[in-house]
Amino acid sequence: MIKAGIVGGTGYTGAELLRVLAAHPMVEVSVITSRAEAGCRVDEMFPSLRGKSDLCFVEPNTSELLACDVIFFATPHGVAQAMMAELIESGAKVIDLSADFRIKDIGVWEQWYNQQHACPELVNTAVYGLPEFNREQIKTAQLIACPGCYPTSAQLGLMPLLKAGWIDLSSIIINSASGISGAGRNAKTALLMAENYDNFKAYSVKGHRHLPEIKQGLSAMCGEPEKEIGLTFVPHLLPTIRGIHSTIYVKLNDRAGDVQALYEQAYANESFVDVLANGVYPETRTVKGTNMCRISLEKTPEDDMLVIMSVIDNLAKGASTQAVQNLNLMFGLDETMGLEQIALLP
Amino acid sequence: MIKAGIVGGTGYTGAELLRVLAAHPMVEVSVITSRAEAGCRVDEMFPSLRGKSDLCFVEPNTSELLACDVIFFATPHGVAQAMMAELIESGAKVIDLSADFRIKDIGVWEQWYNQQHACPELVNTAVYGLPEFNREQIKTAQLIACPGCYPTSAQLGLMPLLKAGWIDLSSIIINSASGISGAGRNAKTALLMAENYDNFKAYSVKGHRHLPEIKQGLSAMCGEPEKEIGLTFVPHLLPTIRGIHSTIYVKLNDRAGDVQALYEQAYANESFVDVLANGVYPETRTVKGTNMCRISLEKTPEDDMLVIMSVIDNLAKGASTQAVQNLNLMFGLDETMGLEQIALLP
Amino acid sequence: MIKAGIVGGTGYTGAELLRVLAAHPMVEVSVITSRAEAGCRVDEMFPSLRGKSDLCFVEPNTSELLACDVIFFATPHGVAQAMMAELIESGAKVIDLSADFRIKDIGVWEQWYNQQHACPELVNTAVYGLPEFNREQIKTAQLIACPGCYPTSAQLGLMPLLKAGWIDLSSIIINSASGISGAGRNAKTALLMAENYDNFKAYSVKGHRHLPEIKQGLSAMCGEPEKEIGLTFVPHLLPTIRGIHSTIYVKLNDRAGDVQALYEQAYANESFVDVLANGVYPETRTVKGTNMCRISLEKTPEDDMLVIMSVIDNLAKGASTQAVQNLNLMFGLDETMGLEQIALLP
Amino acid sequence: MIKAGIVGGTGYTGAELLRVLAAHPMVEVSVITSRAEAGCRVDEMFPSLRGKSDLCFVEPNTSELLACDVIFFATPHGVAQAMMAELIESGAKVIDLSADFRIKDIGVWEQWYNQQHACPELVNTAVYGLPEFNREQIKTAQLIACPGCYPTSAQLGLMPLLKAGWIDLSSIIINSASGISGAGRNAKTALLMAENYDNFKAYSVKGHRHLPEIKQGLSAMCGEPEKEIGLTFVPHLLPTIRGIHSTIYVKLNDRAGDVQALYEQAYANESFVDVLANGVYPETRTVKGTNMCRISLEKTPEDDMLVIMSVIDNLAKGASTQAVQNLNLMFGLDETMGLEQIALLP
Repeated sequence: MIKAGIVGGTGYTGAELLRVLAAHPMVEVSVITSRAEAGCRVDEMFPSLRGKSDLCFVEPNTSELLACDVIFFATPHGVAQAMMAELIESGAKVIDLSADFRIKDIGVWEQWYNQQHACPELVNTAVYGLPEFNREQIKTAQLIACPGCYPTSAQLGLMPLLKAGWIDLSSIIINSASGISGAGRNAKTALLMAENYDNFKAYSVKGHRHLPEIKQGLSAMCGEPEKEIGLTFVPHLLPTIRGIHSTIYVKLNDRAGDVQALYEQAYANESFVDVLANGVYPETRTVKGTNMCRISLEKTPEDDMLVIMSVIDNLAKGASTQAVQNLNLMFGLDETMGLEQIALLP
Repeated sequence: MIKAGIVGGTGYTGAELLRVLAAHPMVEVSVITSRAEAGCRVDEMFPSLRGKSDLCFVEPNTSELLACDVIFFATPHGVAQAMMAELIESGAKVIDLSADFRIKDIGVWEQWYNQQHACPELVNTAVYGLPEFNREQIKTAQLIACPGCYPTSAQLGLMPLLKAGWIDLSSIIINSASGISGAGRNAKTALLMAENYDNFKAYSVKGHRHLPEIKQGLSAMCGEPEKEIGLTFVPHLLPTIRGIHSTIYVKLNDRAGDVQALYEQAYANESFVDVLANGVYPETRTVKGTNMCRISLEKTPEDDMLVIMSVIDNLAKGASTQAVQNLNLMFGLDETMGLEQIALLP
Repeated sequence: MIKAGIVGGTGYTGAELLRVLAAHPMVEVSVITSRAEAGCRVDEMFPSLRGKSDLCFVEPNTSELLACDVIFFATPHGVAQAMMAELIESGAKVIDLSADFRIKDIGVWEQWYNQQHACPELVNTAVYGLPEFNREQIKTAQLIACPGCYPTSAQLGLMPLLKAGWIDLSSIIINSASGISGAGRNAKTALLMAENYDNFKAYSVKGHRHLPEIKQGLSAMCGEPEKEIGLTFVPHLLPTIRGIHSTIYVKLNDRAGDVQALYEQAYANESFVDVLANGVYPETRTVKGTNMCRISLEKTPEDDMLVIMSVIDNLAKGASTQAVQNLNLMFGLDETMGLEQIALLP
Repeated sequence: MIKAGIVGGTGYTGAELLRVLAAHPMVEVSVITSRAEAGCRVDEMFPSLRGKSDLCFVEPNTSELLACDVIFFATPHGVAQAMMAELIESGAKVIDLSADFRIKDIGVWEQWYNQQHACPELVNTAVYGLPEFNREQIKTAQLIACPGCYPTSAQLGLMPLLKAGWIDLSSIIINSASGISGAGRNAKTALLMAENYDNFKAYSVKGHRHLPEIKQGLSAMCGEPEKEIGLTFVPHLLPTIRGIHSTIYVKLNDRAGDVQALYEQAYANESFVDVLANGVYPETRTVKGTNMCRISLEKTPEDDMLVIMSVIDNLAKGASTQAVQNLNLMFGLDETMGLEQIALLP
């Protein structure tokens, strides 16, 4: 069994990691940390885990973590980078779900996250953990920077077109909507049930932290990391717990061909990307709790405009199950191991 | 008191008309028709009206309707056009909430609604009932074609820019989301609670019936009804009952100036359009049950792109309260009479 | 115009008071206090009030409050009692929405609220503001203690039977469910959208603070304030914002007669209590945002057991609109003034 | 592999069976019938199953069903009884999720279901499929009548007390609430999203079809099948998709002892019944999609009254996963096989 440690287990991505790993046949969580909840049983905080886990939260402790075969960070940004140098030097394999090592350009990271990066020297060694794009590098990586939730839906939605060079890169529009779990388990008035139920709104229109991450990813997919992408990204808050739906608007250029066939071929061997038949649109409920991304393509009456719809579960493929998909690749396991859940319907 | 008749009172826009008119100081509903529910008390079907209405549904009957001062059609498309010639000839004032008289081009209407128009000769006499655009014509109109719900949010969101000529008309994108009441009170599996709660999806991406209505409206606002607008419109289904949120993406052209000031001035004297301060985004909950449209403008980091957010209640400003706003104008009443409700919060 | 002051306007009952009073033809809110938000416009915090209020929150200040004709307390328990002696001595009329003056037995209050009462001498002068029970006393009261939300639904559901003496008082069961706004606008993890959507649970089963209030009320309705009632009360948390549904189980005793007729007669002249026809059950949505209580009665196959269903909006009849109903009585206005809203449907 | 057939696969319990069996290591679904959808792929109707099933719905056909090792009926009542005699005579093992064979007293069944029973001779051979009560009989049964959803939550909530004889049997009150999936996948206005979201109500107060089933079950647990139980059962409709919460009120009699210990011991060896620590109450979200029943016990301030809270997922432990638990027992498999899912949290 692979021994896993989880740093910061009291947030929603931590809880989701516990759920997925409890069902993984080759991994056991041996340590989970939380400064605030040290001593508390995890199944007391997350009663859905009763009977599935005997763990208690413990204070973060490097030597205990180093005894693990792999360490997950399910922490807010800033935490992983403070501990990373020591862990990496000691040879640990690390899968970071936070934003700390996603952005290659330190200046850009520091600008958007509004703090100095504590470990810039490791940023370039980190592999961006989007298996459908980076599978081979992930297999041999020591440090994985898991993609953000919006960036996962956006990049998988655009990758085949970008690789094929079929779209106008100067004006991509990504209109996304996410369930509220994306905002984390934070006791803020703005996240209350009474403030969000039966409501819908846009937020961070002026610039969301996932914007530079998406831009970097799209440029990489073009094969030109320096390529400047003209991207407008507007996230919205859905009155649901989970689910991201990205509606992406692109202009096809002259070289564009059969986009349905392009996507079906591009993802033919992917276990976790499902290209729907033309005319069938994806629903967030069909991916809830799963590692699936479902994608549809539709040309609008304006014939050079293509609409791409891409749905994932923000806590699963957008965070914790994708982290486990990375683990499977890093440890030479079947990529789908422990990730075969089917969404509830209804 | 103005006597009002309602044709088709068992749908959601009919119920909403009853709610609003029950609180209107100058209107009383004297007849409400429903073939299926004739004989049933309206407060038996809509218990929220208990104590507010003693009406029973009756079979549609032209002479009874003609005894009213104004007749509302809250019917599916196709019904109003079948009765309209007789009513109009008899001098009745009619406010049609359906799609029958919205589209000026009969061929376009017949193509999108997939049937022959039964009363094409009256289409041109119908006034499109968007008071913020057509106020003067509404005051003297005999037949009002009330705007659709998506078109209301879209046109109010774009009107000042179109009138000013500040945007590129070749690639407007309207990404809208609506609560499920927009689909009406129809016993369909696809509209069940179990199929829609905790879910989000796009629909009618290939072309929604509101697309030609929006195009016609935007062209009119440009002052060039023949102007071809490049428009992509994608509606989505929100897991809520009410509320439309349109996120509109436009490219500002060279002549563009201070858009915030443009909107504040354009709507300075409008009772039902509220331009929010820069950086504050509209929420659907703030307009629920009201005739308000709230609008925000935000420039994105891509500096020539403008994002406009526009929210309304699809059953209220998107249908029944806007119909009453039209009534107020037609009868020389204060435009806000009976329309002063404040949305619940929370 | 009656000048009203509101102490503690940033909670949900404060926001609801603002909404209702903004539409009240005889009352204007002239001062609203909040230590935390002093200087902030109320319509900035509650955007649904844009265009309806120009007020700003101010620091609590006794002399400003005393310039009002009536003062509402929309504060957590403990606040009103600290200021009450001074206000009452100065002759102010006060409507307290908190629990401070509801319980006549100081010892009981101190036990359940776990603090010493700061103003026990005024408890007996306070009139319990349930108009359907205490209308005459309310008209001349200086200090009103508005009922809690659960107690309102429970007492209106039971009053006719208690007055008639038709039920076994040793084993009344009240099974209630409330929307989450009842827990207030508090930034607590347990109240997050992600923790409550798509969920249902009981809470405070061992004893909720409304239990002694209900007991006191039921005893008073029996005409025997010292009467000991055998009462089990279990509240549950609904995944909605508003609405209380109480399902009450009582055993009819030998003297019981036609309970449907009893309730219809008891509430025949009440504007805000609606007894539904036998076989029709109340829904929380039909009272949302209104001052209505809807009640149904049903005998079960076990023929001596009666089930009473009673619904209110916890923030409206369970708090703020009932407070305004009390104001109307205190100031000799029509009891229904400003309280004629109709619930949205759907 | 055990070959399973499903009759009536287009309803919600059918869909849930497909989900669970797709993940069961020892069962494969070889035939699924639907008259209405014959020819349609199951993953077209239930897109969550894409990649997990290649099945198409077929017309019901006895010989194809008889080629299966086990046949599930996921049909409305009345269907299974019409086909049962032939299947049972042919030696088939049948697990019926409908109400056809639950009630032993044919007269009672016919009264509540309002039709003549087509196969009364098999009713007594059917084993009531509540494993925690009937495990040994299930192992050797040919025909299983799976319990209803409310009856499962109610019986598991009461079983230890009934077996111990600790409660007054003359006045048990079961106040239950269920998500709307319990009403099935039926295109009825009353089940629309717009009619149920943000709403709560009681229904079938005069008598729900699960009442006689619960009574029969409770009597059996007393060891006296003829014992008359005084039972009041009121179901309510929750604005969620899944989840049943039963709040059960019983009077402890003189012989009652430590109820917490009683329940912990009674369910100590049960994999799917979880007795929570005193003071912790069950939430429906913690059992969603799982075969778990979570139970809490609380004495109220009235010291002879006990409140029992019991939660299940109505489509899972209340229907389809319990059916699979029965299958595991019938085929000598580990009782938990394929049933290890953990509920999503959040």
